Amino acid sequence: MNYPKSFQNLVDSLKLLPGVGEKTAERYAFSILRLENDKVKEFGESILNINSKITTCPNCGCLSELNNCLFCDDKNRDNSIICVVENQKNVFILEKIGVFKTKYHVLGGLISPMDGINPEDLSINKLIERITKENIKEIILALRPGIEGNTTSLYIRKLLENTNVKVTQIAHGVPIGADMEYLDALTLEMALENRSEVS
Amino acid sequence: MNYPKSFQNLVDSLKLLPGVGEKTAERYAFSILRLENDKVKEFGESILNINSKITTCPNCGCLSELNNCLFCDDKNRDNSIICVVENQKNVFILEKIGVFKTKYHVLGGLISPMDGINPEDLSINKLIERITKENIKEIILALRPGIEGNTTSLYIRKLLENTNVKVTQIAHGVPIGADMEYLDALTLEMALENRSEVS
Repeated sequence: MNYPKSFQNLVDSLKLLPGVGEKTAERYAFSILRLENDKVKEFGESILNINSKITTCPNCGCLSELNNCLFCDDKNRDNSIICVVENQKNVFILEKIGVFKTKYHVLGGLISPMDGINPEDLSINKLIERITKENIKEIILALRPGIEGNTTSLYIRKLLENTNVKVTQIAHGVPIGADMEYLDALTLEMALENRSEVS
Repeated sequence: MNYPKSFQNLVDSLKLLPGVGEKTAERYAFSILRLENDKVKEFGESILNINSKITTCPNCGCLSELNNCLFCDDKNRDNSIICVVENQKNVFILEKIGVFKTKYHVLGGLISPMDGINPEDLSINKLIERITKENIKEIILALRPGIEGNTTSLYIRKLLENTNVKVTQIAHGVPIGADMEYLDALTLEMALENRSEVS
């Protein structure tokens, strides 16, 4: 005897989540079964709402709700700076710090010819277009360090070479509190290259 | 800036799953966002259906769909044997083996005075009632080995002491393929106690 059909459907849906296999999906499904009725209702509806309410801003690529981009429409930001990130999640990671209030631009990936991701697959043209249209003075590249991130950063810098736009990137180095012993060679190399005088 | 409200609602719901914290919930929510529209619809509806379609059989305590118990109503089972388990999930773990086709009885827990779980909190009276009503010849106790499982097994055996019902329990010992080195003392002790002659 297998699970009742409605239950198996739930298990199958839960298996769509990243890193969730049969056993974890079953555990999750049984836990949903034990929730109160209105919690289950909220849960199901919160998923259904994702389709109807959450969209991607056609300008900056950020998550937006009901066609109002929380970032593009915000007048309390430094509107002369665009912070360029790989994906929508990174925007909120940076926002949690809460210090830097800039505009954003989500590339939707990093250049990686090995994986077949070329500049035209990313939202780079749109970025260049925004720079003129929105009168941008500085681009902060906040991309994942590594080959793909560096390639993408260099590509964007090259495109803006003959303009007045300042192109900066976030600092790469040893994170606060990290044990040197467990850092990879590339990070240490960057930390050495980007050393600064102790004042 | 925080996540859009609909997105945050989804993250909050996902945090209700066992072992899922803020970061995992966010990762799951972004993965749901990337699913195709009809997959998202199926996912949401599979959760909502849990409320309306999945019930617990009032007789055996198993998961059932639309008030038809897949087990109690099945004529192709050995209807003189009840396999007693701790929870609804265990039923399907045993069913996956597919060899033993008995009726089931879900206790809804194990006796554990330390955690305030007494016999009257479990579906034990219902089990005793079923034995007469359904003309049961054998009870197989398939409970989690350990103090709680043993206490519960002994309690049920005692209740049925002066009846003709055979009370058996599944064998406890060294699992096939297990490395002896990593087994706990209780399992090894049981394996020694329950040793059998090599024939």
